Amino acid sequence: MDKHIDLVLFGGTGDLTMRKLLPALYRAYAENTLPENLKIFTTCRSEKQKSDYLSNAETALNKFLNSSEIDSEKIAQFLSLVCPILVDINDSDSGWVGLSDSISIGVGDSSREQIYYFAIAPSLFSICCQQLDEKKLIGKNSRVVLEKPIGYDKTSAEEINESVARYFKEEQTFRIDHYLGKETVQNLMILRFSNLLFENMWDRNSIDHIQISLNETVGLEGRAGFYDDAGALRDMVQNHLLQLLCLVAMEPPNQNNSANIRAEKLKVLRSLRLIAQSEIKQHTIRGQYVTGEAGGKLVPGYLEELDKPESFCETFVAIRAFVDNWRWKDVPFYLRTGKRLKQRVAEIVVQFKPITHSIYSQSAGEPVPNKLVIQLQPEEKIQLYLNSKDLGKSEVKLQPAVLDLNLTGNFKHFHSDAYKRLLLDVINDDASLFIHRDEVKSAWGWIDPIIESWKQENYEPELYRSGSWGPESSNDLLSEDGRKWHLATEENCNE
Amino acid sequence: MDKHIDLVLFGGTGDLTMRKLLPALYRAYAENTLPENLKIFTTCRSEKQKSDYLSNAETALNKFLNSSEIDSEKIAQFLSLVCPILVDINDSDSGWVGLSDSISIGVGDSSREQIYYFAIAPSLFSICCQQLDEKKLIGKNSRVVLEKPIGYDKTSAEEINESVARYFKEEQTFRIDHYLGKETVQNLMILRFSNLLFENMWDRNSIDHIQISLNETVGLEGRAGFYDDAGALRDMVQNHLLQLLCLVAMEPPNQNNSANIRAEKLKVLRSLRLIAQSEIKQHTIRGQYVTGEAGGKLVPGYLEELDKPESFCETFVAIRAFVDNWRWKDVPFYLRTGKRLKQRVAEIVVQFKPITHSIYSQSAGEPVPNKLVIQLQPEEKIQLYLNSKDLGKSEVKLQPAVLDLNLTGNFKHFHSDAYKRLLLDVINDDASLFIHRDEVKSAWGWIDPIIESWKQENYEPELYRSGSWGPESSNDLLSEDGRKWHLATEENCNE
Repeated sequence: MDKHIDLVLFGGTGDLTMRKLLPALYRAYAENTLPENLKIFTTCRSEKQKSDYLSNAETALNKFLNSSEIDSEKIAQFLSLVCPILVDINDSDSGWVGLSDSISIGVGDSSREQIYYFAIAPSLFSICCQQLDEKKLIGKNSRVVLEKPIGYDKTSAEEINESVARYFKEEQTFRIDHYLGKETVQNLMILRFSNLLFENMWDRNSIDHIQISLNETVGLEGRAGFYDDAGALRDMVQNHLLQLLCLVAMEPPNQNNSANIRAEKLKVLRSLRLIAQSEIKQHTIRGQYVTGEAGGKLVPGYLEELDKPESFCETFVAIRAFVDNWRWKDVPFYLRTGKRLKQRVAEIVVQFKPITHSIYSQSAGEPVPNKLVIQLQPEEKIQLYLNSKDLGKSEVKLQPAVLDLNLTGNFKHFHSDAYKRLLLDVINDDASLFIHRDEVKSAWGWIDPIIESWKQENYEPELYRSGSWGPESSNDLLSEDGRKWHLATEENCNE
Repeated sequence: MDKHIDLVLFGGTGDLTMRKLLPALYRAYAENTLPENLKIFTTCRSEKQKSDYLSNAETALNKFLNSSEIDSEKIAQFLSLVCPILVDINDSDSGWVGLSDSISIGVGDSSREQIYYFAIAPSLFSICCQQLDEKKLIGKNSRVVLEKPIGYDKTSAEEINESVARYFKEEQTFRIDHYLGKETVQNLMILRFSNLLFENMWDRNSIDHIQISLNETVGLEGRAGFYDDAGALRDMVQNHLLQLLCLVAMEPPNQNNSANIRAEKLKVLRSLRLIAQSEIKQHTIRGQYVTGEAGGKLVPGYLEELDKPESFCETFVAIRAFVDNWRWKDVPFYLRTGKRLKQRVAEIVVQFKPITHSIYSQSAGEPVPNKLVIQLQPEEKIQLYLNSKDLGKSEVKLQPAVLDLNLTGNFKHFHSDAYKRLLLDVINDDASLFIHRDEVKSAWGWIDPIIESWKQENYEPELYRSGSWGPESSNDLLSEDGRKWHLATEENCNE
């Protein structure tokens, strides 16, 4: 590998860099999947930060890596690739000159590539691009990685994207969604598109409905100011939930490449049925947590955490969505996300229809409809729910059987790391798992009217206790349709 | 349970009784699935056999049960149900009187049932029935169990069935095929009929072909005289292979009961495409083993075992069969059975079609078409072959994954025993897994013309080495169609 890559992490001292990006890069380094000529620049905002950087980075690696991954010699070798630099993004002098010295020779050299990772507030994206441009650090081999949130609504998202687009072409722009880097999400696509058994069944004829849940147990975690302006719909649904929905619902792309995959995802987003204001309370549920239990302890409610006497921000949202196309017409996609819920679980549940007629008598038991559960958190696993024979009985008895399709057990030394996967994709210039500008726009195009309707209808969030499954109405949303939310832990029947 | 059952095992000292029937009954006893008022009569042909019977039975149980099942106290209790009696089937005096004394009071009593198990040569079926009738031992609560072989061709089979039918109605007649008592065969039906995922795919649109193999490693095992007259086609295909084919190919019965299941099996047998004489060498392969290897030792060939200078009997047969109905038109069913083959394996392989288009590049690997393998021997297991992601790789790599659907691991104390299952079915008067007279007739109706064509064409068996996979032409049968036989051991890719 002769390719030379300069990777610049803006926000080099931030939480994301320390907790996720450096460990991910170290993992890739330890696996020999990084290009040999990679240099990692991390921006610091003070001399102190800069001089302490490597020892802080070492501490972070030791803290956030699994103990089995830690090899102090390898960490030292890895850190020799890391070069902290002093940069004040707003100040065009400061360290920009140093950065420029280190990188500029590469710009225009076809064997050298530059990757600018914006682990910074979106309000800084524009100025950061501007500075890079002024210092002539953007060439045709440059790429930029953008972290969420991209905008607050369609208009602000377009502003941000436009401000970046003045300096980077769309194919140079990598909008990251770490859920898409999960191995199980990849595996979901492979299961769908490499097995007749699944893809043949992947439509309204065989699928009853789909659930996508991103349930958190945490509260605000110090994001009070930002969160109260955004709410769960903007913070989780517009990006993560809709992206997962796209991957489940999209038509098979012609090829597994970014242009084809993005085109199919976009078609899904554009097929999302708009929720009319008159039906907003029927199809969307808002919730806000009050004090209750988390991890066995009493925890404060949202208002206490916010330290404000009033807020109508939703910390929970559930939506009955529809994708209006031939494949999915009238198949409900139930989306759900919330904070301070009973269990941390991120999962996609594909519920197949029941069989049309059971030939077995009541005493044999009712066959459970087949179900495919793709769990992203807390564990990455894919489970298939089938009916099998209860081998313990000499008479015919149906026995629900849960099969593990993810097979992590077979890969003992494997550590799934979404950021590693996505960073390597950026390095390899593969945008398949990144979000196109048009997707951001289309997603907001479906979200904005929901927020507007909430406002018009004065639709206040329903209170729910911390440590519960969210507001009662969330269960009603499904029970009205004769369905219920999948419980990750309830159905491990044969273990 | 007030039901009183008298079970008479004709051929009580024979190999089948000692090796299979008594252990099966003991298992049921140990599990408490036998009716409380069961009495087991076993026929002996001499006073010596009778006086030694219980100690011989005890020896047999200790030999043929798994060591974990043996409980000497339970064995003693069980043997207290066993009553050896002296009966010469041909001699209407002998012990028939004693049997009659023990049982006749029950005939006509609606709370008492009689089961006559004919573990004897079919040539004795008729006289045995006659004796039972003379002694007035057949009532409306009597049932008879017939062991194979039932006939040598359609005419002789009809003769045997007719001779039994003079005394027992069809619903009182239980023709046994122990392959149908296997748990995995039951589970195959449950998988098909309780999972949308399978039954939706169970036709010519999704299935490429089906293989059914009953491969043995043994040679003649002292059956020389009988076998040389019969051959593999009569000995294995007419009954076991066609029965398994029926269960795989049949339409879903309306209910899981004997009338419905038999009706569906019969429809399959009647849909079997007759093989024309002109195509006999194209669709059927005959083989005969010569000396070679078995279990690491040199073993004699068929003629040496037979001790005859010439025989055209087939010890191997492979057939390309078709079921001419809407569901299966032009889907080949490859049937194969033989002695002295490389591996003892009885299995059904359902090979699904390949996906229509792979979205992944060559470097990701070719997806393997899905496959469901139902293995009856040496182990009972059901495996599903899928494509999954190779989690050890950060790039997309397809990884064949084999999932175990039979889940025996979850039933540690479970011992699958086909005879136990079938005996309990007879006791419970459930004929679902037994063969109707019309099935026997229809099966011969397909087999007889094959034998006739072989004769007309002087189609001699191709020699194959003991310890091989049979004659070369057997592989050609599939390779001509661009396919190959599933190898039970080759594809355990992720273990």
